[in-house]
Amino acid sequence: MDSAWDELTLAFSRTSMFPFFDIAHYLVSVMALKHQPGAEAVALRNPLSSWFTAMLHCFGGGILSCVLLAEPPLRFLANHTNILLASSIWYITFFCPCDLVCQGYSFLPVQLLAAGMKEVTRTWKIVGGVTHASSYYKNGWIVMIAVGWARGAGGTIVTNFEQLVKGSWKPETEEWLKLSYPAKVTLLGSVIFTFQHTKYLSISKHNLMFFYTIFLVTTKITMMLTKTSVSPFASFEDILGRMLFGRQQQFSTCGKKNEIKSSFNGTGSSTSKPTIDASDKVKKKHTKKTE
Amino acid sequence: MDSAWDELTLAFSRTSMFPFFDIAHYLVSVMALKHQPGAEAVALRNPLSSWFTAMLHCFGGGILSCVLLAEPPLRFLANHTNILLASSIWYITFFCPCDLVCQGYSFLPVQLLAAGMKEVTRTWKIVGGVTHASSYYKNGWIVMIAVGWARGAGGTIVTNFEQLVKGSWKPETEEWLKLSYPAKVTLLGSVIFTFQHTKYLSISKHNLMFFYTIFLVTTKITMMLTKTSVSPFASFEDILGRMLFGRQQQFSTCGKKNEIKSSFNGTGSSTSKPTIDASDKVKKKHTKKTE
Amino acid sequence: MDSAWDELTLAFSRTSMFPFFDIAHYLVSVMALKHQPGAEAVALRNPLSSWFTAMLHCFGGGILSCVLLAEPPLRFLANHTNILLASSIWYITFFCPCDLVCQGYSFLPVQLLAAGMKEVTRTWKIVGGVTHASSYYKNGWIVMIAVGWARGAGGTIVTNFEQLVKGSWKPETEEWLKLSYPAKVTLLGSVIFTFQHTKYLSISKHNLMFFYTIFLVTTKITMMLTKTSVSPFASFEDILGRMLFGRQQQFSTCGKKNEIKSSFNGTGSSTSKPTIDASDKVKKKHTKKTE
Repeated sequence: MDSAWDELTLAFSRTSMFPFFDIAHYLVSVMALKHQPGAEAVALRNPLSSWFTAMLHCFGGGILSCVLLAEPPLRFLANHTNILLASSIWYITFFCPCDLVCQGYSFLPVQLLAAGMKEVTRTWKIVGGVTHASSYYKNGWIVMIAVGWARGAGGTIVTNFEQLVKGSWKPETEEWLKLSYPAKVTLLGSVIFTFQHTKYLSISKHNLMFFYTIFLVTTKITMMLTKTSVSPFASFEDILGRMLFGRQQQFSTCGKKNEIKSSFNGTGSSTSKPTIDASDKVKKKHTKKTE
Repeated sequence: MDSAWDELTLAFSRTSMFPFFDIAHYLVSVMALKHQPGAEAVALRNPLSSWFTAMLHCFGGGILSCVLLAEPPLRFLANHTNILLASSIWYITFFCPCDLVCQGYSFLPVQLLAAGMKEVTRTWKIVGGVTHASSYYKNGWIVMIAVGWARGAGGTIVTNFEQLVKGSWKPETEEWLKLSYPAKVTLLGSVIFTFQHTKYLSISKHNLMFFYTIFLVTTKITMMLTKTSVSPFASFEDILGRMLFGRQQQFSTCGKKNEIKSSFNGTGSSTSKPTIDASDKVKKKHTKKTE
Repeated sequence: MDSAWDELTLAFSRTSMFPFFDIAHYLVSVMALKHQPGAEAVALRNPLSSWFTAMLHCFGGGILSCVLLAEPPLRFLANHTNILLASSIWYITFFCPCDLVCQGYSFLPVQLLAAGMKEVTRTWKIVGGVTHASSYYKNGWIVMIAVGWARGAGGTIVTNFEQLVKGSWKPETEEWLKLSYPAKVTLLGSVIFTFQHTKYLSISKHNLMFFYTIFLVTTKITMMLTKTSVSPFASFEDILGRMLFGRQQQFSTCGKKNEIKSSFNGTGSSTSKPTIDASDKVKKKHTKKTE
């Protein structure tokens, strides 16, 4: 029975992403691009720019990991089959008469299927990134974590940067001031797979891939169904935050010093406004805790 | 006679860019920099920064193609002769007493000669980029097109990015929201030379270089003489846009849906304002067509 | 006696930076980060982002030189010991109860010691950068200067760029519009060590390192004690500026042309406002000189 289970997970871990899972990933990415304000107008005025942005949405993680390892960022263009696939999906998504694709995509089951399959590709990307980085730095487990994270969730960073260069950057959507849930779960997966790769975790890779993928898909689909945006890690993060960064006592005992300092900063420069509000928010949260 | 013709084009394709054509390219680039608002003040306050910007203007395309192929962006600094040439041109352009260079450059024939010679260097850059990329990716013709394009017309992207980092970015001059004419013609040339390189085009390289350069120079000089900014490809692009992206019928049949969507976007976010206006413009243009 | 002197400088030039000087460098960098407005609030809301920024502050120069030489920017993550050291210093600096570290650092002697040791690491970084670049480009002395400069003083550029991407960029702190004193002195050192490396300077490297470090430390400490921000090179720069860029006569003879041009620029675009003011300032300064 154990062997049968192993066979199952082994077969799963050997599934090829190529035709179907990649299509789902490209579809979800291009749809996310299309629902950005003004994306359709850009596609009509300048299809080349829209195509370029779509490619960044589809291959952003790979590009970022290439940059971090000093490999040609254009490498993804050498894989003609995937480029053709992504381009055709971009084409039918944006220029299909009367938005047939969008109307088909607006059905919830389709969205759930596509989102679930996209999460499967995430696992493969993380594993690929970790293995790739380990070929550069034999024991550089921090590098492995970073590259796995970048390939798994770096697409948002690349697209945010592209929006910044294009001038249509929205600072609310900053990826590294408040980590989104996908970024967090990808970081977790990257850490796990790095530990497995460096033999700190005594579990076979295919089992780990199976379980992690199941976890990804189920959480994603439940979050889509319950339309909740609260992360399952919230409580865990809170405990960790208290343990490591001792928020409470720092604020309870030395709150005045911080207030003085931050108010001083407030007068110091003009850019500190939002951060000050945030710090006040944090303070409120924690004083509420202490009560 | 055919052999004589071949000899001519072969000799042309073997012309060395080094002393004179490079000088013309540097002169045009530095002049474009000097005519930017405030460039002279920067040159007086901080010559080093002005020199750095001038180098970016002169070698931007090469730097971008190096970045895209993960080669040292500083490589251009190892070519001391060209650096010295460009630096001296930057020096006499900015610090020649009483602007003698600018006054000499203000004569139309000088400008025409310099611009024509700069266009010649463009051909050489595209060919160099395509050949260079093919040494990395044997059959990656998309990469060849991208690198040839980057080396031929990437200077504007690099300088725009530098202005963005310096804080003096003008979003109107965005290179990939509305492709400038040089960008378009360079893309065309990059595609042609890539097809020639991958043997899809059965024409000898020196003939192609000759014809493409003639085309570049003539169009550039006619555009300078007639002060027209309309691209020769406009009608061709329009036909292509209708064929590929079916603008008309999409707008005639499903116009309402788009309007609703775009108005929704308008309320959705603050950044969508310009794009919405643009989409309205597009809509007007096409409704005019349909009338 | 000469041999004794040589032995001393040789022993000095072989001092290992690892435990103590690196600690001082990390401490000064993290303190500079902590005194930025809102840095503490970010550290509480999102420790990961704060840690990343701290790493950029500590290893920025190395990252920039890696990028310039097309090496993996993540390489610094493979050096686990230094990462651990910098991370622990970041941790005790930000999360030590009641800011014990800050209070200890607020004593002037501690600051002087840390700043002096940080300047020592600067010499080692410049030498390392020059040697590293010379392994790529045998005679590319411009590249050596650039890489040495980047590794010695590039941290500010990296952190400024990170602030730009984060949206909290302060254009006043631009590093290449008005070079800060550390940038200037690092450039000087990079030039000197490049000349020494390319045998244009007939002085042994360990002597040069000794003298340059003494110069760095003394100037830094005197500037900290006298709270002066005027650069020792000011007069030298002024003479050089007059010799090379003939500011005076250009302004005295052709001042009107410039005024007309700049006023034209003022109407030309919206971004030219600050630069115009600056040019006016320059003009005033020089007209004062000519009077």
